[in-house]
Amino acid sequence: MTTERMGLSVDGYYLGVDGGGSKCRATLSTLNGELLGHGMGGPANPFQSISRAIESIETATAQAIANCGLDPIEVSRIYAGIGLAGVNLPIFYNAVCEWQHPYREMFLTTDLEIACIGAHDGNDGAVIVAGTGSCGYAMVNGKSTMCGAHGFPFGDKGSGAWMGLEAIKAVLLAADDLGPKTSLTEKITGQLDANGVSIVEKMAGGGSRRFAELAPAVIDAAEAGDTVATGIVESGAQYLSEVARKLWLNNPPRMSLLGGLRDRILPWMDASVVACLSPPVHEPDVGAVLFAHRELNKAANRSTDVARLQVG
Amino acid sequence: MTTERMGLSVDGYYLGVDGGGSKCRATLSTLNGELLGHGMGGPANPFQSISRAIESIETATAQAIANCGLDPIEVSRIYAGIGLAGVNLPIFYNAVCEWQHPYREMFLTTDLEIACIGAHDGNDGAVIVAGTGSCGYAMVNGKSTMCGAHGFPFGDKGSGAWMGLEAIKAVLLAADDLGPKTSLTEKITGQLDANGVSIVEKMAGGGSRRFAELAPAVIDAAEAGDTVATGIVESGAQYLSEVARKLWLNNPPRMSLLGGLRDRILPWMDASVVACLSPPVHEPDVGAVLFAHRELNKAANRSTDVARLQVG
Repeated sequence: MTTERMGLSVDGYYLGVDGGGSKCRATLSTLNGELLGHGMGGPANPFQSISRAIESIETATAQAIANCGLDPIEVSRIYAGIGLAGVNLPIFYNAVCEWQHPYREMFLTTDLEIACIGAHDGNDGAVIVAGTGSCGYAMVNGKSTMCGAHGFPFGDKGSGAWMGLEAIKAVLLAADDLGPKTSLTEKITGQLDANGVSIVEKMAGGGSRRFAELAPAVIDAAEAGDTVATGIVESGAQYLSEVARKLWLNNPPRMSLLGGLRDRILPWMDASVVACLSPPVHEPDVGAVLFAHRELNKAANRSTDVARLQVG
Repeated sequence: MTTERMGLSVDGYYLGVDGGGSKCRATLSTLNGELLGHGMGGPANPFQSISRAIESIETATAQAIANCGLDPIEVSRIYAGIGLAGVNLPIFYNAVCEWQHPYREMFLTTDLEIACIGAHDGNDGAVIVAGTGSCGYAMVNGKSTMCGAHGFPFGDKGSGAWMGLEAIKAVLLAADDLGPKTSLTEKITGQLDANGVSIVEKMAGGGSRRFAELAPAVIDAAEAGDTVATGIVESGAQYLSEVARKLWLNNPPRMSLLGGLRDRILPWMDASVVACLSPPVHEPDVGAVLFAHRELNKAANRSTDVARLQVG
């Protein structure tokens, strides 16, 4: 990760941004790979709100710059690698690209690609993410495979938001005496401080984050043997295991499980899948730095090729 | 429904409004029960948008008045009975009550209560609604029982919106090769003119109506023997049958199935439940007229009681 390796003599910094449905994390490093500092911002999923996502990236960037003791004006010397949830959809990719960003250059991709680059130190591999949302991604021999990443409420099975939604459904069925009242009912009504129809008022219009906040209670209940919660967690974990098996068909050299629910959902997944998992080498924000390196390098090589062609 | 029966000598009109997630229907009648005309408005579920719901009620009211050849100024002589989805939640009930309405008096209740009053001509009974949303309601000896009516996406099983959501989930699983591709896949991708991740773009942020538009295709597929669609429709119909059985425990003299999916879901419900169903006597908007009558009568009786007390 040195300037020599990059074949570049440019001056400046690299910023890696990992933006998800709950928060946005930025890492700033020098061109020769020295880590300078971090910054945090709010939710950065353009699927939820493009303006909010951009605001969160700006906050995380400003914090990272301040955290490193740099002058805010240095933002114009930054090569930013940005990985965002939702930009697998062209409509959101294009919307973020229209942002009049303050960086020297911005390279945009999915949060999945930077997570995969980070988890395997820039090499081929696969990742399964179980956080606010859920999805799978593999990059092998230049071919990427995506699985899930469809978003709340139709996709993201096995994610925190999905678990929260399934729990709310079960609690509302129980409130109507059309489903069993279990310890999960008490946990959810306790956490929301609401019963029956008041739960609907509390959750009405709520996005994935609000539902994902309920996931730890669902897993707690499942661990304590609650039948309804166990059904939810087992079904979610089974889906994640299926995603892993599907990605494994691409023969990735490594596979990692990532996301806020990683440690809690792992014991519920198939043992054969768990046996294939390796710990991630870097966090996704560092993956975003590596992504910016790679894209800048590609651009530099293209320029060199063009120069060669022009000389030739 | 004459002024004598009402014990009132007031002059004016009755308006009954049935507001749901897809549209709003208004019926205008004279004080002695003569039907004058109808009006239609857009979606009127305050759960989705309070301002939109009020706008739709205003449109339906204006149309009904124009349809009857009345002067718009006559709105101030109207006693309005308004039944709306969503106002079982106090937050939405109170929000609609704050509306500076143009009527002489407004009586507000749920779309369920006016549907039940209409279906049983003002007498006790129960209703199950299967339309954009789903729910059950019984009124027996002054005691009401509500079932479901929790809204999209956590409740409303068996409804059109729920069927559409389940279909989208199945089609997205199939797009990832994690679920079977069936004729339902073709029907949904055909109707949306979208495949895989483009489906997510089309449906992102979509409310219950957008999902409910897919329900006829799901039932078509189920009728043609599609296994995935059959699973969805059977599960939804089973829930509606459970709601009916639960309401039946209250011993309602009559029970009716209502809503836009009525004729399509009926063949999928339990035969023992179907045997208990009677056709609705009136549509819900006429139920709203009857509701306004009843509430005005109650108010008049209270005034008489107060007058008696004051005289006594």
